[in-house]
Amino acid sequence: LDTGNLASNLMRGDRRAIAKAITLVENDDPEAARLLRKIGPKLGDAFVLGVTGPPGTGKSSFIDRLVEYYRKKALVVGVVAIDPTSPLTGGALLGDRVRMVDHTMDRGVFIRSMASRGWQGGLSAAVSDVIQILDAAGTDVIIVETVGIGQSDTDIIRVAHAVAVVLMPGMGDDVQASKAGLMEIGDLYVVNKADLPGADELVVDLLSMARDLKGRDPSVLKVCATKREGIDAVVMVLERIRSKLLSSSPSDGGREIRLRSVRGMINELAKKKAFARLGEKSNSVEALAERVVDHRLTIGDAADALLKARWRPRRAGKR
Amino acid sequence: LDTGNLASNLMRGDRRAIAKAITLVENDDPEAARLLRKIGPKLGDAFVLGVTGPPGTGKSSFIDRLVEYYRKKALVVGVVAIDPTSPLTGGALLGDRVRMVDHTMDRGVFIRSMASRGWQGGLSAAVSDVIQILDAAGTDVIIVETVGIGQSDTDIIRVAHAVAVVLMPGMGDDVQASKAGLMEIGDLYVVNKADLPGADELVVDLLSMARDLKGRDPSVLKVCATKREGIDAVVMVLERIRSKLLSSSPSDGGREIRLRSVRGMINELAKKKAFARLGEKSNSVEALAERVVDHRLTIGDAADALLKARWRPRRAGKR
Repeated sequence: LDTGNLASNLMRGDRRAIAKAITLVENDDPEAARLLRKIGPKLGDAFVLGVTGPPGTGKSSFIDRLVEYYRKKALVVGVVAIDPTSPLTGGALLGDRVRMVDHTMDRGVFIRSMASRGWQGGLSAAVSDVIQILDAAGTDVIIVETVGIGQSDTDIIRVAHAVAVVLMPGMGDDVQASKAGLMEIGDLYVVNKADLPGADELVVDLLSMARDLKGRDPSVLKVCATKREGIDAVVMVLERIRSKLLSSSPSDGGREIRLRSVRGMINELAKKKAFARLGEKSNSVEALAERVVDHRLTIGDAADALLKARWRPRRAGKR
Repeated sequence: LDTGNLASNLMRGDRRAIAKAITLVENDDPEAARLLRKIGPKLGDAFVLGVTGPPGTGKSSFIDRLVEYYRKKALVVGVVAIDPTSPLTGGALLGDRVRMVDHTMDRGVFIRSMASRGWQGGLSAAVSDVIQILDAAGTDVIIVETVGIGQSDTDIIRVAHAVAVVLMPGMGDDVQASKAGLMEIGDLYVVNKADLPGADELVVDLLSMARDLKGRDPSVLKVCATKREGIDAVVMVLERIRSKLLSSSPSDGGREIRLRSVRGMINELAKKKAFARLGEKSNSVEALAERVVDHRLTIGDAADALLKARWRPRRAGKR
């Protein structure tokens, strides 16, 4: 594999090079790190939008509308869908993906599904690698779609510049039941399928929750994605964030948005590297487990011993 | 807090002490580690069964039947349900839990839900702490229920002595679509709601997949949990594994089952500790993020630098 060649094709926006680079990341190929080092200097201008929400709220139709908008503005769009399809969950999301096929013939749209399983804690690191690849390939807007279930989604969202939470009427009680977690992550709350009864109540609920937040003021907007209603207002909110990001004026806060995302990426990648190191085959886990089963060691002490066998903690004050 | 007193009440099987101990773990209270050290020597005889499967396959009714069986044998049972209820998923599982209320008046059954969110990679470590607490309190059978979505469930399952995967007819295609992942984890495949059309086809599918496995021979059983049908056969499979676990004869393989679970616990706890260390507040992430945004550092190098700032890798060959 000629990483240099792949990198330069990638940076020209070549679709096959993009696909190949993402496959390297997905396979955790050692070449992926070399490639990312090569494209590193080209990073920086893509706007990363996280879209999350429960199954069935119409995230894909919503994303479809956003893709349409950005394409009309001749922007290059990437969609990375974290697909929880697995033996244990069923393929509903795969069905969603098929609807997006409208865009697959469009050379300015790159769509990729990534499995949510099998990453051993490294999913968000892989997503941030894919974001870097799409960014380097000249993508203007990268939409990362996750289904709002479990910790890994919250981790992924941390690498985005902005987050849209897609909800729908008829989930009011659940939303009410756990305000804090919900209001923590969104810059924008989309009440999709707003032609269903209960939409206004949900908006009122969300607005009253938003009022209690300190230092943040997320938008709450009604949308009917399949009927193309309410998308203009959504796009206005998103474009305001994107223009901050692209602004060179320090007072616009674009640097702070970038820093937040980069901090998330660094942390997730460091976690993945720590994981990989712990997972290295060795006799130490075996020997420790034997001692625990023989009641000669607690699990806590065994875990400490395993960590010590892999790393020596830095002394405080020393770098 | 008098940890010594709590530990001795716990080891007498006092329910309030159990609840208090689990709360310590859930709050990541430093006392939890001290408590676990104290109860460490008492560990060892509980049989840990993981039950997983997609939403709606009737895991809770199935677990209800198992609880009934073990209670008839006068065994003390603990059920730990990992509850993915969150603002983004809805409360279906909470509804499931209510059905289990039948058992809540029974002093020999301890039921506890644990939220699946907010653990920052430490959920399975927390579950293995809870297993240790229930074990030390004299619980004979600990059932850990997870919904089969996402990596964290697979991690949790790793600490169990046996795993039952609950499926139902009408999911055949999805099951087929990803054989490998499904067949990796189960010791027992339960085709629940077996009175629905398609049950036999699902059994045939699962059996043919099982035939391809090397060195493992999972059971496939039809069950109708709500009608109490097929439970006897399930229980026979589980009791065979439990008697291996409790056997002192080395040829029964009980020690190997224990070691597998303990290795899982050690690894998950070590991961959690590594995570916690990475998450410690420091200026290093801030400074690294600044350099990445200024194109002076790649994210990969920043992650390496962060890891190095927290740990010095052990030299090979040195312990």
